[in-house]
Amino acid sequence: MFKAWVHASEILTGRGVRKKDGRKIKEEDLGRIPDGAIVCSLKKIGKRTVPDRIEWVGPTSSLPKKWGVEEIETVDLQNRRALIPGLVDCHTHLIFAGDRSEEFAARCAGATYQEIARQGGGIQRTVAATRDATSKDLERLASQRLREADSFGVRTLEIKSGYGLSLESELKILQVIPRLRQKFPQMKIKSTFLGAHAFPSDLSRQAYLDELIYKMLPEVARLRLADSCDVFVDDGYFTTDEARQILSYAKELGLKIKIHADELGNTESAALAVEMEALSADHLLKISDQGIQKLANSSTVAVLLPGTAFYLKAAHAPARRLIEAGAVVALATDFNPGTCMCLSLPAMMTLAGLYLSMSPAEIFASVTYNGAKALGLANQTGTLEPGKDADFAVLPFAKFEEMYYRFGWSPSFF
Amino acid sequence: MFKAWVHASEILTGRGVRKKDGRKIKEEDLGRIPDGAIVCSLKKIGKRTVPDRIEWVGPTSSLPKKWGVEEIETVDLQNRRALIPGLVDCHTHLIFAGDRSEEFAARCAGATYQEIARQGGGIQRTVAATRDATSKDLERLASQRLREADSFGVRTLEIKSGYGLSLESELKILQVIPRLRQKFPQMKIKSTFLGAHAFPSDLSRQAYLDELIYKMLPEVARLRLADSCDVFVDDGYFTTDEARQILSYAKELGLKIKIHADELGNTESAALAVEMEALSADHLLKISDQGIQKLANSSTVAVLLPGTAFYLKAAHAPARRLIEAGAVVALATDFNPGTCMCLSLPAMMTLAGLYLSMSPAEIFASVTYNGAKALGLANQTGTLEPGKDADFAVLPFAKFEEMYYRFGWSPSFF
Repeated sequence: MFKAWVHASEILTGRGVRKKDGRKIKEEDLGRIPDGAIVCSLKKIGKRTVPDRIEWVGPTSSLPKKWGVEEIETVDLQNRRALIPGLVDCHTHLIFAGDRSEEFAARCAGATYQEIARQGGGIQRTVAATRDATSKDLERLASQRLREADSFGVRTLEIKSGYGLSLESELKILQVIPRLRQKFPQMKIKSTFLGAHAFPSDLSRQAYLDELIYKMLPEVARLRLADSCDVFVDDGYFTTDEARQILSYAKELGLKIKIHADELGNTESAALAVEMEALSADHLLKISDQGIQKLANSSTVAVLLPGTAFYLKAAHAPARRLIEAGAVVALATDFNPGTCMCLSLPAMMTLAGLYLSMSPAEIFASVTYNGAKALGLANQTGTLEPGKDADFAVLPFAKFEEMYYRFGWSPSFF
Repeated sequence: MFKAWVHASEILTGRGVRKKDGRKIKEEDLGRIPDGAIVCSLKKIGKRTVPDRIEWVGPTSSLPKKWGVEEIETVDLQNRRALIPGLVDCHTHLIFAGDRSEEFAARCAGATYQEIARQGGGIQRTVAATRDATSKDLERLASQRLREADSFGVRTLEIKSGYGLSLESELKILQVIPRLRQKFPQMKIKSTFLGAHAFPSDLSRQAYLDELIYKMLPEVARLRLADSCDVFVDDGYFTTDEARQILSYAKELGLKIKIHADELGNTESAALAVEMEALSADHLLKISDQGIQKLANSSTVAVLLPGTAFYLKAAHAPARRLIEAGAVVALATDFNPGTCMCLSLPAMMTLAGLYLSMSPAEIFASVTYNGAKALGLANQTGTLEPGKDADFAVLPFAKFEEMYYRFGWSPSFF
């Protein structure tokens, strides 16, 4: 059985983005097809029939006749709705409990992120609430958040642990992820172990490093609970030396690696990410010229998180310099309770247009193919081409650009 | 018949906001009631039964027993959802046709609003599309937008004309509004005539001024199509002298007045608004110290539109100086296709917290009572007190602050 979506007002395949491996993307790389159609094979998951692989993409007028009427179901988008590759949110901290809205009000009144952390707020507050939460609570909260992300067109999403900071509670968080995969079989969910998110208040620095490296990492790897390992390298968090130690061992255990790099201060951790062949270096608000050059000459994706700069009232990452140097740039939400309580990837796209001066083509690549590349999934998803997985989003708008020209929109009202 | 909502996690009545008439609002003015209840009388509109007036507000534990079980329907909010006065969006340009997403991309690439206007884009592009649209098209678009606003908790909304710029097409726009009132009987919709939004490209400046004052205004007043008249006073738009002429005549015809003041440049139009006893002076990005003092000593509401500064990448209005001087400050979306394609008042609240350094109490007042005051509706709505209209919003969150600590949220996923 097959299913076709026809008369999409436009389909953006992203074929040229894949060909250029996400670098220096121009309008002509988007593969924009007016009045487009896509045909997918179907598969059964439990009792549901869902799209499986992409069989064909092109203008509706060229749709091959090889599928008989009885073996193909057709959805007519009436030239009112655009169809694009499913969005990829390649950096989220989706699983946590607790509420930090009061702390947000304090930040609005002028308190800094670091001041709040020193007063027992910040990550530690969420760690306490997450440790207290049951596994069921965490699953319920994460499910609600995944449904919200899905409503914005997100089909692939990464989830980091990091609000447990103990073997038991980090495992509790990571063990929610396989259950989410069962609940959302249409979504690709990648799991990242971020035990190195902060130091817990109940252990010395060295004791936690030992716990992390000699207990938590081996157990996470043994239980196959994570695809990647990430470290928050920053002033007041982990040093580059500590990160090198943690991530080297993670690589030995077969995990991919990622780094929270050069966010609050410059630690040359983008360069470390390149040196260690990380999938991505994320944040980069304070990246140096040297860091930009290293990223541009590597396969490590520069993941920009403009919602975080927006919440922190900080200067944005140097997106144009990264793009012009030839780096592969992705955008993600960084959804987290401290510095970006936002699951809307379209909102990040608006910020990227206005405040990172990114073009529509660059923005498109950054939330599709380049996001997939930051998760090691560029061969499976991120563009609409025959043979790839049928991950796509039908937009409530006729043009791709409308999804970020509009701001704060509510998907259910279109 | 009556209806009660009980066990709201908190109710914010805003009683103290009304007592201080919206000035220098502190936390204690919000009338925050934990585990609150509200009782409303009901009325029939067609076949629907809807809340009419507020009968009682207080702690659930003090709910009077005077209503018999058979005459009161009860909704239990299980201490999970907060209840606040219905939001007021006191400045929107809700009715227009056409798409300007390409122009937005040009602005992201560095073009200014004024440059785009000179190249035939901007307001003139929307005027052309709106003149071409049928009345039915406009009603369909506006209805969809109203449903979206409603989903964010907006119960009172102002709509400005101004994308017609001819007698016929301004009337076409304004005539949609009574039909929207019929379709959305639970919503208060105020209508503002903004023929003085720009000069049309097909008439000389003087010819349009004559048309506006001697033909359009009297006809709008005769047909009772507007509650207020507004003028866009700015560099390249209407001068203060032209505004005085237009607005004096509007007042004679019985309309309230409003001014788009000191937005792109300083024209001392906030002072003009005070002098003419306008309901509000809106935008104020470039207001002078003198303008701030005049507003603070008047009943004219300072309507701030942080989404517009966000889209224009302009410096925000001096909210703290206005508030500390004693001005009544309201927040609104300015929803429009050129400088704020956003219907989310909660998104404006986030911007106000982060970028206008407004406190939770100030933000609360600015989207409830103070917004109502900017529309001349403060006696009917904007606070939750017995005798007032039953305009309220049940939030998908337990605390008021969550509605703007979160950003870009989708109401349907809670």
